Order: sequence, then C-alpha cells, then structure tokens
Amino acid sequence: MPTPVLKESRVDCLIIGAGPSGLFCAHGLAQAGLNIRVVDKRPERVSNGHADGIQPRTIEVLRSYGLEERLLKQANQMHMAAFYNPGSAGGIELTERCPAVNAPARYPFKATLHQGAIEEIFVDSLESMGVFVDRPAEPLSLHTSDERELLDPTSHPIQVVLKRLDTEETELVRARYVVGADGAHSWVRKTLGIALDGEQTNYTWGVVDCVPDTDFPDIRNWCGIHSHNGSCMVIPREGKKVRLYIQLDERQAAGFESEGRLDKSKTTVDRIMEVARATFHPYTIGVKGDVEWWTIYRIGQRVASSYSSFVERVLIVGDACHTHSPKAGQGMNAGMLDSHNLVWKLAHVIRGTAHPGLLRTYETERRAYAQDLIDFDKKFAGMFSGKPWSKTNQNGVSHKDFSHIYLTFSGFTSGVGVQYAESSIVDARHQYCAPKLIVGQRMPSYVFMRAADSRPVDIQDVLPADTRFKFVVFAGNTSDRSQLRLLHKLSDSLSFLSSSSSRRIFDLVLISAVRKGELSRTQLPPLLASQWPEKILVDDLDASRRLGGHGYNEFGIDRQGVVVVVRPDGYVGMVAPYDKVIELEAYIKRILV
Amino acid sequence: MPTPVLKESRVDCLIIGAGPSGLFCAHGLAQAGLNIRVVDKRPERVSNGHADGIQPRTIEVLRSYGLEERLLKQANQMHMAAFYNPGSAGGIELTERCPAVNAPARYPFKATLHQGAIEEIFVDSLESMGVFVDRPAEPLSLHTSDERELLDPTSHPIQVVLKRLDTEETELVRARYVVGADGAHSWVRKTLGIALDGEQTNYTWGVVDCVPDTDFPDIRNWCGIHSHNGSCMVIPREGKKVRLYIQLDERQAAGFESEGRLDKSKTTVDRIMEVARATFHPYTIGVKGDVEWWTIYRIGQRVASSYSSFVERVLIVGDACHTHSPKAGQGMNAGMLDSHNLVWKLAHVIRGTAHPGLLRTYETERRAYAQDLIDFDKKFAGMFSGKPWSKTNQNGVSHKDFSHIYLTFSGFTSGVGVQYAESSIVDARHQYCAPKLIVGQRMPSYVFMRAADSRPVDIQDVLPADTRFKFVVFAGNTSDRSQLRLLHKLSDSLSFLSSSSSRRIFDLVLISAVRKGELSRTQLPPLLASQWPEKILVDDLDASRRLGGHGYNEFGIDRQGVVVVVRPDGYVGMVAPYDKVIELEAYIKRILV
Repeated sequence: MPTPVLKESRVDCLIIGAGPSGLFCAHGLAQAGLNIRVVDKRPERVSNGHADGIQPRTIEVLRSYGLEERLLKQANQMHMAAFYNPGSAGGIELTERCPAVNAPARYPFKATLHQGAIEEIFVDSLESMGVFVDRPAEPLSLHTSDERELLDPTSHPIQVVLKRLDTEETELVRARYVVGADGAHSWVRKTLGIALDGEQTNYTWGVVDCVPDTDFPDIRNWCGIHSHNGSCMVIPREGKKVRLYIQLDERQAAGFESEGRLDKSKTTVDRIMEVARATFHPYTIGVKGDVEWWTIYRIGQRVASSYSSFVERVLIVGDACHTHSPKAGQGMNAGMLDSHNLVWKLAHVIRGTAHPGLLRTYETERRAYAQDLIDFDKKFAGMFSGKPWSKTNQNGVSHKDFSHIYLTFSGFTSGVGVQYAESSIVDARHQYCAPKLIVGQRMPSYVFMRAADSRPVDIQDVLPADTRFKFVVFAGNTSDRSQLRLLHKLSDSLSFLSSSSSRRIFDLVLISAVRKGELSRTQLPPLLASQWPEKILVDDLDASRRLGGHGYNEFGIDRQGVVVVVRPDGYVGMVAPYDKVIELEAYIKRILV
Repeated sequence: MPTPVLKESRVDCLIIGAGPSGLFCAHGLAQAGLNIRVVDKRPERVSNGHADGIQPRTIEVLRSYGLEERLLKQANQMHMAAFYNPGSAGGIELTERCPAVNAPARYPFKATLHQGAIEEIFVDSLESMGVFVDRPAEPLSLHTSDERELLDPTSHPIQVVLKRLDTEETELVRARYVVGADGAHSWVRKTLGIALDGEQTNYTWGVVDCVPDTDFPDIRNWCGIHSHNGSCMVIPREGKKVRLYIQLDERQAAGFESEGRLDKSKTTVDRIMEVARATFHPYTIGVKGDVEWWTIYRIGQRVASSYSSFVERVLIVGDACHTHSPKAGQGMNAGMLDSHNLVWKLAHVIRGTAHPGLLRTYETERRAYAQDLIDFDKKFAGMFSGKPWSKTNQNGVSHKDFSHIYLTFSGFTSGVGVQYAESSIVDARHQYCAPKLIVGQRMPSYVFMRAADSRPVDIQDVLPADTRFKFVVFAGNTSDRSQLRLLHKLSDSLSFLSSSSSRRIFDLVLISAVRKGELSRTQLPPLLASQWPEKILVDDLDASRRLGGHGYNEFGIDRQGVVVVVRPDGYVGMVAPYDKVIELEAYIKRILV
C-alpha cells in the first residue's frame, strides 16, 4: 500500500543532505533569494570526526559569501609541512620542512576545523535568513509524473516524498530542482541509477583524533612520515588536538575484516596507537585523556558516471559524486566547491535569466575536476602508502619523489590552481591580452587602492559571490587623453550593462594604472562614475607603501586596456582587448537569456 | 524632606555615564570578573552626530579586548590626508597629499564610525556577560559616611543615591569605587568640587553631517582646507556620508549668541552650508537629501584640576576630565584610553592584588597626556582657524607650518607614540638594553612566528588586555648552548611566576632569535615549556616570506637576552638584561601585594 501523502509543498530547490556540500548549496541559493528546502535524515549535526581540512581556495570562496570570519577565528592553521623518513639510527628522522602551501594563495595555510563547526557556520547563517534544516527527514521516492514538464523552465516537475523520522509524517514536495548532497552512500544517486566508477585499494589506515602526549617536534605541522613500520600523516587540529592517519599492516588489517568488509569492532584504538608508537620511534607518542574519535578505513577511489538526471533537474554534489582517500585533504573542499560551481548556475536558471543548458557545465567542470583529483590521489595515496626507499628496497618511495608530488600539486590541492577547460563559459580566445590572468582559473588575490580614498582592497572582495557577472575594466593610463577617450568609447559599447535590470545581473569594476589621486570621478563616463567610490581602483602602493602597486604586471596586462569578465563564482570567464568588447557581449548572450 | 531610600545594593564599581568612556570602563571591569553597575540618564543611546573618529592606537586597544572586529567591518577608513590652500585662480587648490597616519601603526588609517555604533559594540558585549546599562537613571547624591572606611581596602565606602527617571524609584548604591564618565558637564566632577582649568577661544565653527553633492576630488580623504573665506576640515564617514567642520566668520558668529553663549537657534544649517560653498570655491558642495545632524560650537580647552577624590575612591574619565576642539579627532579616543589606563589598576586594587596607591598613577599618566593634548590642540586648532598666508598677510598660516604640525604630531594624534613618564610603573633604568622598545610607550606591533607551527602572530595578540602583567623573554640564540644554559638559569630566577596563583596575575612569552624549526619544546625549562605552543615564538620570516624576521633589530635587542615587562594595558613597564632580572621582581613588588 502506498504511503498516504498528507501535505504538499512547492520549492525552487530541494536539497537532500545537510553536510557541508548540501548546506553550502542551500546557503548560496537562499542568499540568492530563492525558495529552498534542506532536509537531513540525521537528527543532529556531526559533532566530531569526519572531514576537517579546509584548503586556501575554500577559504577564499567562503569569504566571497561573507562566511570566513568564524572559520578563521576557530580553525587551526597549518603553515609548514615536514617530511620524515627512516634514519640511520633505526627510527624516523626529519628530512625536510617546506611551506604547507606552495602556491600564491591569499590565505597561505591549510585550516583545520571539525566538520560540525563548519556546518554550524552555514546553519547559523541560514537561520538568520529564516531557513531551518528539516531533520530528521528522509526521502522515500523521487520521480516526475510528466516528462514534458522537464522542458518547461517554469514547472515544478520533480516530486519527492519525504518522511519525518520523528513524527512519521509524510509530505509531497514538488521541486523545480533537486540537489542530492547525501554522501558516499547517496540515496539520490542510487535512485537515479547512477554508477560509481572506480575501485578500492588494499591500503588500510586507522584514524585517531586525540590530544597527543609526545616529544615529536613537528606535532603542530602537517607531517608525511614514511617508516619501515608503515606510514603516518599528522594533521594538527584546533586547540591541542591532532589527527593521526596511521597505515596498518596489510596482513594485520586482513584480520579486521568480516564478510569481506572492514569491521571496526575487530580491533581497538589501542592496537592502532601501538602501530603509531612503532612508526614514530625514536619519538614517543601517546594519548592524553580520552581519544575523541577513531576509525579504520580502506581507500576507495570512485567517480559517479553522471552528475545529474531528468534533464539536469536532479543533480548530485560532494561525496555523492566522488570518493577518494582523505590524504589530499580534499573531501569537504571538493564537495563545497561542487556546490559553489552549481549555485550561481541554478540561481540564474531558476530566475529565468540563464539558458537551462548552463547547468550542463556543472558536470563538465566538476566531473573533470573529480577525475583529476582521483588521478592525483592515486599517485599521492599510493606513494604515501608505499614502503620507503632503502638500499634493500630500491623500488620504495624516495623522499625526492614524494616531496616532488607534494610540491608540484600544491596549486591543485590548495585549490588556487584549479582550472576549468574551455567551454561555453570559459572562452580563452583572447588570453594573449592578459597572459597571467588565466581564463578558467579563479581571479587571483591582489591588492589595489580605491581611487577615492586610497583604501587598500583585495580585488577578490569587489567580486563577491552574489550571482552577478563582473566586468573588470583595466583602463590603462587614464591620465593619458587618448586612453581616456578610448575608455569613454568603451563605456558606450558596454551600454547593455546600464539598465537597472542589468544591475541585478552584472557589476562593474574599473582599475586604472595611474597613481593615487590621479583619477577623479568627474573624468569618468557616467556608467563607470556610478561605481565610485567602492569599485574604482588604481594600481598603486598603499599609503604605508607595503601593499599593491604591481597589479598590471602581476596579471600580465599592458596599458592598452583590457576587459575581464569574471564569472559569479570568481573564475575568469573571458578576457578581451577594448576593440573586441563586442565578443564579451556575445559570450554573455551564449549564457544568459 | 529627604528622598526615602527604598533599595540598597553593593557593587565593586559604579560607573556613572554610558558614553564610550564609561562603557569602555564598565566593559573592561566586567571582563575582569568584577561586579559592576553602569547607569546613564539618557533613555537611549546616541544615534547620530557626536564624536566619531577612532585613532590607530584605539583600534589596537579595542583588539586587545577582542572588540575591534565589528568596528573594522562598519567603519570608514581614512588613509590619505589632503591639504588645500588659496590658489592663484581665486579659489582653493590642492597643495599636497600625504598618508593620513604618519607613524608606524598596526592599523595605518583613522577610522570613522558614529558614536552610537561604537557604544553598541560595548553594550552588546556587556550584555553577553549579563551586564545591562541601567537607564534612564541619575545620581542624586554622592558621599561617604565614615572617612576611615576609605582606607580599608575591603570596604564599600562610597554611597550614591540613584533615581530612575522613568519609575521615579530611588536606590542607595554602596560602591567600593565610583567612576564618573558623565561628560563635559559632569555631575560627578561638580559634586567633587573639581575645577576645570583653561579657557574658551573665539573661534566659532559649524559642523554638518550629510551626504555631500560635490565635485571636490578629495571628499573621501581627510582634508585640511585654508581659504580666504575661512577654513574647513573634511572627515569622510561610513557609507557616502561626510562630516564638514566649517569655520564661521567671527563677526557673523557674534550674531549667533544669546546671553553671551552660542545659540544654535540663531542660525540655520543652510547659512552654514553657504559659508562652506564659498570656502570650497571653485569646487561645488551641496547636500544630497537631508542633513543628518548639525551644530555650531566654540572651541574650549580645559583640563580638570584633579582626576579623583575621596582617596582615589571616586575617579573621573573622558570628557569629564578634559575638553578640547574636535579638530585633532581625539575626544572619544582620549576618553576610552583614560578608561583603558584605569581598568587594570582598578581591577587589581579591587581584587586586592595591588597596592591602592597604584590608582594615583592614573591621574599622573592621563592628566599629563590631557595637558599635552591641549597644548597640541592649541597649536593645531589655532593654525587651523588662522587666516592663510598670502602676500598681503605674511603672518598667516603657511602650508609648510600647518603640514609640519600635522606630520610631526602624527605619532601623538594616532596614539601610537604616546609616552608615559617615569614613575613607579614606568622604570626606564635599563632602557639601553632595548633602545628601540621605549619604556612608557605601547608595545609596538610586530609579527613573529610560533615555534610549534610557524603561524605568524602579532606580538600584540599574545599581550591581551586581560589584567595580567606579561614577561616577554627575548632569549637570543637558543641554539647556542651557553645561551640556552642562561635561559635555564633565568627561568630559575623567574620561579616566582610559576605558582598557580601567579598565573592569574602574570603571563609569559618567549621569543627566540633562531629560525623556524630550530627551537623545540623539549629544550625549554618547564616554566617556559608550559607556554607551548601559543606563546613560544621565533623571530623569523613566515612560510610565504612576506612577514617578520627582523623583530630583534626593530626593537634594538641584541642576542644577549632581555626580559621585558609589559603592563596589562600593553605599555612597556620595564626592560632588563638577564643579570638584572631581580630588579623586575622589585618592580612588580612595588606595584603588587
């Protein structure tokens, strides 16, 4: 007998799963003014364990939504990485230290904060917007009754039956879109019949969250330890806490199985810490007080064969799309940045300002990223789990190989070097006019001065994640009359940005190459003058001469004038010289209605 | 007939007046765990007008209490100063621009935020500690019934009768201490019979808060304008608002008097803006929408002849102690920093950990400062109000003279260069061992790295305003064995800091001159090792090589080892070489019980 449906409701978007990816998505859509609903079957938020590494790019992205402050206040910061290897005296010894982030990041460190605290940041901000997570509630079914509705952008074609697990009440939700953010064992993914492609490795690891009692000197740095007893990764956390990833011997680990799967009940945290003690020798390591959380796992590396179904009406994000080892510290980051990529696209499509086809770029961009992540993870986790090089094991992992991987992929793992391929929304045809401002990468952090008051402003802060496309005009030397005349002409060709309805979709920033005080509002064409004082910048040093002054050079922009279109998620969509500005309009028309 | 007293209560400290100075004091004492009460006769907080400039040192101090965040988010920032003078074409013209703050400040700008918003920061933080401003309520009488009680540190000798202005209820409050923070017309000061010494000038100024409609290019910078029509000061504020100080013609201003005092009703804001229009010529200036607030005033410069009475049981702070022109942007800053100077002294005396005589240093330090401020204000306001130099007025104020004053006193006006004279709590006898770390000045901002995790930390952030004295050990090259031996010996002579009761009064910071990774916890004597990881720093560059690395040099400290005692308010109290550490103990014993 079918469950009797008592209630019915309609939403723009139903988000299933209130982990970091789902909450990020809900928060972004709510901030964009959409009518959303977010449900989770867990009665409570995660309070310990689970993912907790936050990469530099993720901090930038959180800031673009105004959410970085509490994270920065509460999180631990990892600035240094240390590599240990078997020493001549029998135990491990320090081989090298290097910066933990080896890429030009605005936040040059990796942050750690437990998942519950991160979820709380979103939950509190959602509550301030009047949105509350509906929990405990789980979906019972998902379908569409009329396939033609899928092609009508104004319809609510997806029907989800939800059940509250406390009151047993059921409800039919009619949604324009559904986002499945329900984790590695995703009900949404399974319901859509989407396969996970990939495999499981034989590497078995233990994880222990605790306050350590140790004389190990790098216990507050990220550490990659290779020993003849197995490998270990050290992740310092908030307060005096540390997470230890401890590689377990394969034969030993085989004893932890039941019915072919790892079974935590077959071992104890003491046995895992025993392995750690042997790995850390000659340093001592123990636990002060109680272990906060621990588990054992085997690395699996898989990507969903598709990221959506029902003509992009139902999409999946986060662990529902990809699983990999926690070694690269990417899990939660990859999930939240999936949502970051999706939010502005969904917002525009739901509002009717973008062609629904825009949603297809979510899968092309984020699935390619997930594939790259797994390729990296295979190399990195493989090397991490490999036996160290020694005279008797010439095929082992050498420090040189391992640190090479760590450093080479720092742009990728920190997130600041991630690049989306050319597509309808990544158009690199005029890359030559801003060779160091890579189309498809995020707008780098750089400090310019406001022309009006010489206040230093990071360019990322005038490009918030407010779903608007940003036209950034690098105007060159505006003190030069002919250059100024070109700017006025440019302003005419950007007149499609001047209507009041345009202002909800576009924003404008001007960056002149002149010094502080050399640009006044009255020189500017009205379209640009209206952005005074917040968004009219100059490329000069700040008053104390500590910041800025070389932005044109950093971005490889000459003084002829260049216009950059930055996507709502902060990625460079297209650059064009003044005389090709008409192509920017064409770029926009490909995306927006 | 005397008012019947219905209720009686006891408090450690009663604060009369809930403006910025009173709220600062209440907040500091509440944070220190004391039982306080704060009353104000105004039924509501200030919502516009009044003081609104916040100097760099004040931001540092607010941060030391954890209160700077909202200020920095809401306030406008002034980074540049511009000077205008009569030009050859008849109107004013730009003479020069320079940084608004010409001193090495952690926050190299002046902030502006209206007084109500600043009060709100304190009020909200007080409420989170369960303290609510009692308003509207005013004191009716203040006395002591038994003079001998004044000498008993545990007594509650001051009796204040309070009246609620809404319910008409009266109450007797018995207080150990009373702080009068009730403004320029202070009831407390008058009740104590304390005179204000000084005089009023003849300079009359108008003040207008508005959103200006102007083509004046420096409208978002601090401006000092001298014109043949009179002077003007521009203070850009939050959003698009600006405050204009407009000098009025003396003869014209005479018409604004009634009974020898300025009478606002004798003029209108339009007449003041008419003066502004003539002063700004050839630039245009008008008002967009409504004027937010305006007034006229005459500069008075006065200091209270005493800052306390009843054997330092009743003290006054802020405008109750000193009045001066708003030109130097000091009013609210001077008041809050009075309270900052007083809070830790009161906290220690009330808790019984310091000799009551410590409170006398409040007057000696802050009255000398107020006197300096008025000396400066006389020069500065005099020059600001003077006619500009011209061929026909060779005695006029030249740009050179005016900008010289502006720049020379920047250390003073920004607050970062303020110095307290030698006293029982400022002991400069060993200044030679840290010649650039000036005893009596605030500990400068400088970034060091934490030894444990290479996280960059501003030294000011390990010296919070938590009422504790900080012993900062500059340990030199701890990789050198003999230097390390000296450190262990030093630790023995600092053993008076090791008891658990000491930890409530003292804190310890160690700064080694070695590189990152060259100092491990196990090398340190237990007293210092206990400060790992937060308070063990090294003088090295951060991982991205942008910050730090020259602290010893900046402070003029060599590698022989120096110990610095930083007062609870962040001012350097004494420095001593390792072999004179016993004198630091003597310094402490002079102050504490």
